[in-house]
Amino acid sequence: MTIKTFEDLFLHMLRDVLYAERRILRALPKMARKAKSAELKQAFEHHLSQTEDQVERLEKVFEEINQPPRGVKCEAIIGLIEEAEDQMDEISDPEVLDAAMLASAQAVEHYEISRYGTLIAYAKRLGYSKNLQSLLGATLDEEKQTDVTLTKLAESRINPKAAA
Amino acid sequence: MTIKTFEDLFLHMLRDVLYAERRILRALPKMARKAKSAELKQAFEHHLSQTEDQVERLEKVFEEINQPPRGVKCEAIIGLIEEAEDQMDEISDPEVLDAAMLASAQAVEHYEISRYGTLIAYAKRLGYSKNLQSLLGATLDEEKQTDVTLTKLAESRINPKAAA
Repeated sequence: MTIKTFEDLFLHMLRDVLYAERRILRALPKMARKAKSAELKQAFEHHLSQTEDQVERLEKVFEEINQPPRGVKCEAIIGLIEEAEDQMDEISDPEVLDAAMLASAQAVEHYEISRYGTLIAYAKRLGYSKNLQSLLGATLDEEKQTDVTLTKLAESRINPKAAA
Repeated sequence: MTIKTFEDLFLHMLRDVLYAERRILRALPKMARKAKSAELKQAFEHHLSQTEDQVERLEKVFEEINQPPRGVKCEAIIGLIEEAEDQMDEISDPEVLDAAMLASAQAVEHYEISRYGTLIAYAKRLGYSKNLQSLLGATLDEEKQTDVTLTKLAESRINPKAAA
């Protein structure tokens, strides 16, 4: 896809985020399985079900702009998730691995916070419908909330155990 | 480097961030050159000089924990910056490219916000010195401020021109 206009840039970023969400969907079950802490496991499982909703919302956004919901390879998310997957193979201490996976999940959340923030700004500027903006906004709110939840979990439970 | 302990995880992340900052140092001059908007060019140049300070701070953190300031290849930042660099080659409209570069810069900022946030939490938990924590905290504050500045610039100047 050649990016010529601001609309093209919006569509490209939307495809990039769809690819990212689908990649995250594939990574989360293994992260949940690997998590030693029951609370971290639950956080990953909860985020897996949220991510399924987020993919559905994205598909509705594609529908609103009459485009097929096709992803485009996103090197950033590939790199972020590869780091997390490498750590799952390399870190043998389960408490240290929990801390590492939680930190990786937060890096992924921040990537999404940045992308959805940009998409919403673009959608407003392009005059796209309130419904489209709300679909993106609902996901942005969830991603921010997930980041807050993970920070609390890290500080109260996961990091203390990893450092013990 | 094998990650066995929480200290190892801190050191690994510190090396990862050092690699990331050095990679960003190499990318920013081209982004500044390519920027059409004088304000965006200035923002990238300002961030280049900030990034130099941030590398120095990281080197001091390595000193505090008696470790050589060695980076470790970080796939996440490679992916993030490759996306930005590909766009510089692919987007011919200068206003649309400005918007794309600004969004890429924000994705990089968010990656760093996440990493420095985690490093500070780890440093506290590990009982590292207040000086070490302040060095990381100063950079985290700068990254957050840069993100706010870029959002304002996007909404007031860059996106309107890209959409025109």
